[in-house]
Amino acid sequence: MNEYFKNRNSVRTFSEKEVPIELIKEILSEAIHAPNTGNMQWYSVVITHETEIKTQLETCHFNQPAAVNAKLLITFCVDINRFEKWCNIRNATPGFRNFQSFIAAAIDTSILAQQFTTIAELNNLGTCILGTTTYNAPEISEILKLPKMVIPLTTIAVGYRIDESTATERLPIEAVVHDEIYNDYDDNKVIEMYEEKENLDINKQFTAENNKSTLAQVFTDVRYPKHNNELFSDKYIAYIESQGFKLK
Amino acid sequence: MNEYFKNRNSVRTFSEKEVPIELIKEILSEAIHAPNTGNMQWYSVVITHETEIKTQLETCHFNQPAAVNAKLLITFCVDINRFEKWCNIRNATPGFRNFQSFIAAAIDTSILAQQFTTIAELNNLGTCILGTTTYNAPEISEILKLPKMVIPLTTIAVGYRIDESTATERLPIEAVVHDEIYNDYDDNKVIEMYEEKENLDINKQFTAENNKSTLAQVFTDVRYPKHNNELFSDKYIAYIESQGFKLK
Repeated sequence: MNEYFKNRNSVRTFSEKEVPIELIKEILSEAIHAPNTGNMQWYSVVITHETEIKTQLETCHFNQPAAVNAKLLITFCVDINRFEKWCNIRNATPGFRNFQSFIAAAIDTSILAQQFTTIAELNNLGTCILGTTTYNAPEISEILKLPKMVIPLTTIAVGYRIDESTATERLPIEAVVHDEIYNDYDDNKVIEMYEEKENLDINKQFTAENNKSTLAQVFTDVRYPKHNNELFSDKYIAYIESQGFKLK
Repeated sequence: MNEYFKNRNSVRTFSEKEVPIELIKEILSEAIHAPNTGNMQWYSVVITHETEIKTQLETCHFNQPAAVNAKLLITFCVDINRFEKWCNIRNATPGFRNFQSFIAAAIDTSILAQQFTTIAELNNLGTCILGTTTYNAPEISEILKLPKMVIPLTTIAVGYRIDESTATERLPIEAVVHDEIYNDYDDNKVIEMYEEKENLDINKQFTAENNKSTLAQVFTDVRYPKHNNELFSDKYIAYIESQGFKLK
């Protein structure tokens, strides 16, 4: 089984085979046993099939192939609405409209999404996490009719795999792991760590296709430019606050 | 194997057996194949052994049994420091000191932590996620010597298991899953969903021990009171901003 963890990858094309909704619910029934803060389960999951609603969600994800090709889109949301309602019914005064509660719920929601990914992939499903969820959260929220204290955090595109899984490259583990305390990187160390990544044919091609002189510039100028990050930051923060969380 | 996912639980006591650091690195080498945003790997992991540094970290985690009993504490950090350094060396101008980049990195760091948890537990290790990491992040940061753009997000206490794994109760899956769009809860539905949880002997005992009249009050008055949540929110936000991220 460890072979699975080493070799998994995300996919953006899927088979034509339908994914039974009951299978997804079964996988989620197992995934909710992942750890969560105080066993409060501050999350909700919205499963969207191939319907008009899925088409609307695809637009929110910029019609990226993974979203369009997927049989299902599963939106993982921070959800303190359910828990607040329970508190109010049971004469308890909730105090969760703040950043700590949001971040605790965001960690737990991400953990649930990852546990879902693992179990789904072990059931021969292919998955792709859509980071665009935090870019267009207000639009997603309106489509899915999310009430206050519910925030879309990430989305998993799901379908049956077509291809075998083959691992995507990662930095050497020494780049990520620190012994006892943080060992900061000097220039030589950074160059050494990124060398293999920069020299991969696929990444050289990626740099050339984007008319950039370094791979790093593809990330800063094309994929994640500052002005976009800042625009979508302001948008997400304003939305999170309008949903009831006071961030600052 | 699906039996594992259904039956796993977190543990707070561990065997005396030492955990080889090489095993942890091997598990992390597999775990980094979990999905992450743009394959930028915006995370770092600090492994702390049974040393003076671990004792200092235990204090930051309020000396909770899981932290004190663990053989290792593994601090999972949002890390855009390494990536920024690479960009600067490669004539690329990073624009990641904002909320979108922080939240993307926080999702990826949580995903990595969960993938580590799964693989560790499948290797007979016991784990416990410490939510206290976000409460005392500035102190943890000082102990681990974290540079700007690195933020402690969650910590996993690790050791070999003593007991068999037995699942902790969860809400019925219908409480968490929504079909097509969000189906909001009325009072009757909330009461129905929490009934089993409230009627468990262990939860009745927990309510009585805390001198509360409802289980919900244990969460709002004792475990996660508003004033604490707000105090630690202000502290975490101020720290994140001092580390370089502009949140608002």
